[in-house]
Amino acid sequence: MKIAILGYGNLARGVESAIAQNADLELEYVFTRRDPASVKVKTDGVIVRSADDILKYKEDIDVLVICGGSATDLPEMTPKYAKDFNVIDSFDTHARIPEHFANVDKAAREGGHTALISCGWDPGMFSLLRLYGNAILPEGQDYTFWGKGVSQGHSDAIRRVKGVKNGKQYTIPVESALESVRNGENPVLTTRQKHTRECFVVPEEGADLAAIEKAIKTMPNYFDEYDTTVHFITEEEFDRDHKGIPHGGFVFRSGVTGFAKENKHVIEYSLKLDSNPEFTGSVLVAYARAIFKLNTEGVTGCKTVFDIAPAYLSPLSGEEIRAHLL
Amino acid sequence: MKIAILGYGNLARGVESAIAQNADLELEYVFTRRDPASVKVKTDGVIVRSADDILKYKEDIDVLVICGGSATDLPEMTPKYAKDFNVIDSFDTHARIPEHFANVDKAAREGGHTALISCGWDPGMFSLLRLYGNAILPEGQDYTFWGKGVSQGHSDAIRRVKGVKNGKQYTIPVESALESVRNGENPVLTTRQKHTRECFVVPEEGADLAAIEKAIKTMPNYFDEYDTTVHFITEEEFDRDHKGIPHGGFVFRSGVTGFAKENKHVIEYSLKLDSNPEFTGSVLVAYARAIFKLNTEGVTGCKTVFDIAPAYLSPLSGEEIRAHLL
Repeated sequence: MKIAILGYGNLARGVESAIAQNADLELEYVFTRRDPASVKVKTDGVIVRSADDILKYKEDIDVLVICGGSATDLPEMTPKYAKDFNVIDSFDTHARIPEHFANVDKAAREGGHTALISCGWDPGMFSLLRLYGNAILPEGQDYTFWGKGVSQGHSDAIRRVKGVKNGKQYTIPVESALESVRNGENPVLTTRQKHTRECFVVPEEGADLAAIEKAIKTMPNYFDEYDTTVHFITEEEFDRDHKGIPHGGFVFRSGVTGFAKENKHVIEYSLKLDSNPEFTGSVLVAYARAIFKLNTEGVTGCKTVFDIAPAYLSPLSGEEIRAHLL
Repeated sequence: MKIAILGYGNLARGVESAIAQNADLELEYVFTRRDPASVKVKTDGVIVRSADDILKYKEDIDVLVICGGSATDLPEMTPKYAKDFNVIDSFDTHARIPEHFANVDKAAREGGHTALISCGWDPGMFSLLRLYGNAILPEGQDYTFWGKGVSQGHSDAIRRVKGVKNGKQYTIPVESALESVRNGENPVLTTRQKHTRECFVVPEEGADLAAIEKAIKTMPNYFDEYDTTVHFITEEEFDRDHKGIPHGGFVFRSGVTGFAKENKHVIEYSLKLDSNPEFTGSVLVAYARAIFKLNTEGVTGCKTVFDIAPAYLSPLSGEEIRAHLL
C-alpha cells in the first residue's frame, strides 16, 4: 500500500514513523505548501513535492493522509482531495462534523473514492468506546476525562499572555472524580471537579510574575472555570522537562442491568501516551489500511470509525485474527 | 426486531433482561429442551415452546440467541440452527473456534442467514480491544487479566472435592502485576504472578478441613500453579455473601512508537461487572441487532465481532451517532 502525506508537522511525522512500523505500508510522497526543498523528511527515499502538483501523482497513491488543522485547513482540503484520492483526516471541530461529513461524502462519491474523517483517539478510539458502551449498556452514563497531557490550545493561550516567553499547559483529570466514576457512583461533575490545569511558564526578563499568574488564572473559556496552578521555570528547565507531547485520557460507561436494575457495570478505557502525535498517527495509519481495503471492495463515500469493521484495521487474515486475537 | 432464546439458564435470563432495556427489541419465544410447562419466563407474554418445535416458528423470529454450553451444546446447536435462523452464540472453547466457525459458516450460507459466534466479553469485547491494540501499536505486548470474579469451572472443581458441601472460587488479578503493565514495564509474568485464587467453602459436617484445603490447593490444572487461599464459611455466610456472579478483567496493549522506538504507550480496557451473565447477555443483544441489520442488507455466513462495523450495534442512525458519540 502506497501512502502519501499532505503536510509535514508533528502529526505528519507521527504518521511517518507509524508507517515505518508496518511492513505492508510504504510512504511514497510528502506534499507540502512550503518550498519542497526546505522540507527534510526522515525516511529515506520519500519524494517531497509541492501540494500544487499533487494530481500528477494520483495514480501512484493508494491513500492520502491529510495532516492539517481543523480550524481552516481540513474543511477545505479534505473535500478537495477526496475527489481524486482515498483520504483520511483527524478533523476534530465537533460542531462542524455533520457539514464536513457531507462535503467529504459528496466529493468522495463523485470520484469513486473512500474517505474517513475525524480519526485519531478523540475523536476516534474514544468515540468507538462510547459507541460500544452505549450499545451494550443502554441505561447508563458516559464520562470522558482527558490527560494527563499537553493541551496545545491552552499552551498557545499562555504564550499569548504579556511577559510570557514560553509556556506549556497540562490538563490533569481529578483523581477523586475518576475514583467515583470507577466505583459506579455516577457522580454529577462540574467542569472544575473533572480536570485541573497545570502551567509551566518561562517569563521574559523582568516580567511581572503576579500579573502573568493572574492573567492566566482568570482567562475566560481557557482557565477561569478550572483550578489552575502556575509554575515559573527557566528556559533550561523548560527544555529539559517539557519538550514532549504526552497525552491520554479515560472513557467510562457506567450502567445497570437486571429486571430491577440491580446490577452495576463499569467499562473503562484509558490511554497513557508518551507522544500524542505519534499515537494519533498510528491510529490514522491503521485506518488508512482499512479504507484502502474498503475502496478495493467497491465501497465509496465518507466514513467514520463507526463504519469500519475492526478486521479491516489489521494486516492479518480473518483466519489469523480468529486464531490469535479472538 | 423479534428475538427468540434457546435455553433458559443464567445467560438466557441475562439476554432476557437486556432485551427489556432496548425499545427496538422484543423477546417473542423461549425454546427449551426441558418440559416447556416447567419453564417460568420473567417477561410477560413470552411464549415457551419445546426446542423440538422451533422450526414451526421460523418465519416469526429475526434472531435466535443460542444459550448453551461450549463443551457439547454449541458445537452441535449453532450449525444446526444457522441454516434456518440468524443465530448468535457465546462459544468460548478457543482451540475449536476454527472448526466451529467453518461449520456455522457453511450452514448459514446454505440457508441465507447471518451468524455470529464467540460473542460476549472474552471472547468478545476483550478480543476487539486486542485487535484494535495490535493494529494501532504493531510493536508491543498484549496482557489479559481476569477478575475479580467467579470462575464457574473452578467453583465446580471445588464442589467435587470430598467433604465440600458448597463452594465458590474468585479469580483475582495480582495488583502489582497490573501496576507493572500499566507503567509500561512490559513484565514477563508467570501464571502465579498474574492471578491468585480465593475459595469460599462450606464443608460438610465433620469434614476434614485440612484435607479439603490440601486437595484444593494441589489440584492439577485448576489450582496447583496458583497462590490459593481457602476460607471455610457457613451455609448462611455463603448465601449472604456469595450468591452473585460478578466478574471482569483487564486487557492491555503496551507498545512503542517513534523512529528510535523512544515513546511508550499503554492502552487499558477494563470491565467491572456485578453480573457476568447479564453483561454477557447485553453484549449478545447488541450484536443480535447487528446481525439482523446485516442480514437485511444481504450479508450471509458466519461472522465474529471483528467483522461487524460498530455502528451496526446501535439503534441510532448514522447522523445521530456522529452527532452524539463521535
